[in-house]
Amino acid sequence: MESPDLLAVEEPLEIRLEHGPGTTRRLKNLSVTMRTPGADEDLAAGFLFTEGIVSRPEDLASIRVLTENVVLAALDPERDFNLEKLERHFYTSSSCGVCGKASVEAVKTVSSGSVAVTGKDWTVPPELLYGLPAALRRVQASFEATGGLHAAALFDRTGQLLAIREDVGRHNALDKLTGHFFRQGAVPLHEHILLLSGRASFELLQKSAMAGIRFVCAVGAPSSLAVETAEAFGITLVGFLRDGRFNLYSGPQRLKPAPNPTQA
Amino acid sequence: MESPDLLAVEEPLEIRLEHGPGTTRRLKNLSVTMRTPGADEDLAAGFLFTEGIVSRPEDLASIRVLTENVVLAALDPERDFNLEKLERHFYTSSSCGVCGKASVEAVKTVSSGSVAVTGKDWTVPPELLYGLPAALRRVQASFEATGGLHAAALFDRTGQLLAIREDVGRHNALDKLTGHFFRQGAVPLHEHILLLSGRASFELLQKSAMAGIRFVCAVGAPSSLAVETAEAFGITLVGFLRDGRFNLYSGPQRLKPAPNPTQA
Repeated sequence: MESPDLLAVEEPLEIRLEHGPGTTRRLKNLSVTMRTPGADEDLAAGFLFTEGIVSRPEDLASIRVLTENVVLAALDPERDFNLEKLERHFYTSSSCGVCGKASVEAVKTVSSGSVAVTGKDWTVPPELLYGLPAALRRVQASFEATGGLHAAALFDRTGQLLAIREDVGRHNALDKLTGHFFRQGAVPLHEHILLLSGRASFELLQKSAMAGIRFVCAVGAPSSLAVETAEAFGITLVGFLRDGRFNLYSGPQRLKPAPNPTQA
Repeated sequence: MESPDLLAVEEPLEIRLEHGPGTTRRLKNLSVTMRTPGADEDLAAGFLFTEGIVSRPEDLASIRVLTENVVLAALDPERDFNLEKLERHFYTSSSCGVCGKASVEAVKTVSSGSVAVTGKDWTVPPELLYGLPAALRRVQASFEATGGLHAAALFDRTGQLLAIREDVGRHNALDKLTGHFFRQGAVPLHEHILLLSGRASFELLQKSAMAGIRFVCAVGAPSSLAVETAEAFGITLVGFLRDGRFNLYSGPQRLKPAPNPTQA
């Protein structure tokens, strides 16, 4: 029996949405999520973007923290937005009812091109991946202290760490990360590598696909539907990335050994 | 780069609710959750119970799998049920708005006595806890194979393993476990120890409180709000239970060294 240690903070966040043209402007209580406080505007923006509500930074007229646990996102009054997407009737289709395939198809309809692999593709040497978890750990200060936070980190193609976000919810960590780049107008993230500190679920691959991310690495295991989603969107998915090894589940074309001059 | 290994299966499950008296019987699409197939009736029953919709096995006239990924739960036509609880406006109160304290208070209103510590309380020796993770691992077959499943296990006060459930979602694993005992009429689970294979969040403590569980152990870290919820309900909460040690966060009165005859 030992004394209590540092704790990962978990608090509810309510996201409110202001939408519609001037005279019929409305307020909608969107959702309450349990999250670690901090970067709440990014979290809200990332959520709205990866759920398919907004697609460009200009879609958000403003986004601000109202009180400690409430964020208000105001949509562009000049544009129409499809808020029905938020009802999350994602996972059914008339053809096969409720199933994983329908879930993946539903993401395809919502994503509307953001994930399409257009332009020139690229490769990385497998060795580059081995160093990513250590780079994440070096800056993941909170996890080391509390053991209770998930992290999502974005790297460029050379393995340079660009940003990291942490949260008690793994989907929140990814929403904060994606929201940060979305608000800068930097999505789609076609040229980047995403590293997840834990397991890879359908929801995380869905959000990656919405952000246009083509290369996803997880320190933990992927689920069956995460692999199916990666395959459907042409995403390279790597799991169990730790201790200088990994498993490859999808998209092998983006892994290519570096030319080695000593063997030439 | 190695060949793909076994994958934890993740598929959507839709829970439908049939409710109301004979002539005005209605169907409601309750929720879609991503889960690992198996024990879907238990999952649905556990969800309805820990969300405060049903409180006794008789509240469920029937519960059955309609198709591979759809469960239909029929509520007792003779009784009124408060389905508004499902709207999940849990986390706000007029006094402090959206905050952790309001979240805990909201659980108190919904739980309506199921968590009250009445009758005689009990203690376990700390040493008993050390053996629980190994007992869980011995039967947690899927996790060993896939690395992708969370587990929730219920033990009696002597450390005897009673049941274990696994799922890609940690809340689903607990709903399946709780639903199993709920359907047998065995709740509240006042005399048991719950072991969670990962971290302990607010949601898991909320569900534990609803099931009347007084002793919760987690192999991973608890969140701040998990600790607050445990304290509010008088639940003993142990975290980082591994390698023959643990941290105690709440409810020390239930830990008591065993009488040692050799020291008498």
